[in-house]
Amino acid sequence: MKQALYLDDLKVGDTFVSERYQLSTEKIKEFAREFDPQVFHCDEQLAEDTFFKGLAASGWHTASITMKLLTESLPFAHGIIGAGGEINWPLPTRPDDILYVKSTIKEIKPSKSKPNQALLLVESETLNQKNEVCQKLTAKLLSFRKSEG
Amino acid sequence: MKQALYLDDLKVGDTFVSERYQLSTEKIKEFAREFDPQVFHCDEQLAEDTFFKGLAASGWHTASITMKLLTESLPFAHGIIGAGGEINWPLPTRPDDILYVKSTIKEIKPSKSKPNQALLLVESETLNQKNEVCQKLTAKLLSFRKSEG
Repeated sequence: MKQALYLDDLKVGDTFVSERYQLSTEKIKEFAREFDPQVFHCDEQLAEDTFFKGLAASGWHTASITMKLLTESLPFAHGIIGAGGEINWPLPTRPDDILYVKSTIKEIKPSKSKPNQALLLVESETLNQKNEVCQKLTAKLLSFRKSEG
Repeated sequence: MKQALYLDDLKVGDTFVSERYQLSTEKIKEFAREFDPQVFHCDEQLAEDTFFKGLAASGWHTASITMKLLTESLPFAHGIIGAGGEINWPLPTRPDDILYVKSTIKEIKPSKSKPNQALLLVESETLNQKNEVCQKLTAKLLSFRKSEG
């Protein structure tokens, strides 16, 4: 268990690197069957003739795996609570991919109405085993001062 | 099966409304165990003392359910292929929620390099049974001319 980090402990430029996550054909299809049952996420053969030219994970699957890796790599006090953000998928993730996430605090915006809180802008890149960026997420995350706890 | 819509068939202001999706405590916990194992998504009792004051679905779970509803309500030819977008969660989704998605085409940007393609800006609001907006997603989606197919 990493030590919980409060707003007082954080500064712009702080970086966090996650563990690795092994994707697979079965995981891609299982997520797709439940949440994104499109042919390029569900069927290797039929996926060949689509935009993706082969089986690719749903972008929301990549986002969910990223969240899992963030819960293990961003030890923020009170948890990772996101108000929203901007997400981009420059490349799809594939069955053989081994993914990891690099996060950097880009900005710390103190709350005007709540002196014990701030909004962090955290940029998280999800990379594959070739270090290609498959997803870029800039999330607005809540951070709390120690006194608040 | 709805008729597939090509770029030629779409215009700014077109709207699409999805079916309803019933959330549940078990679905919230199941998603959370795999992708977002934080206490406010996993344990009703412990969630009471957190920011969310009760069990809430992961934002990425809400996003994934939204995607499922979009695959059923946006009949775009060649599927729903997203380059990215902006996502915000004004309210968490809860075990009893019945969710649906209203989508509107806000902008159509023809591709400069690929005359058969355009990027659609599609705003999708995910609402609960009280018609409260729980998620707002503005996605960049690919659209193709009929000739391309």
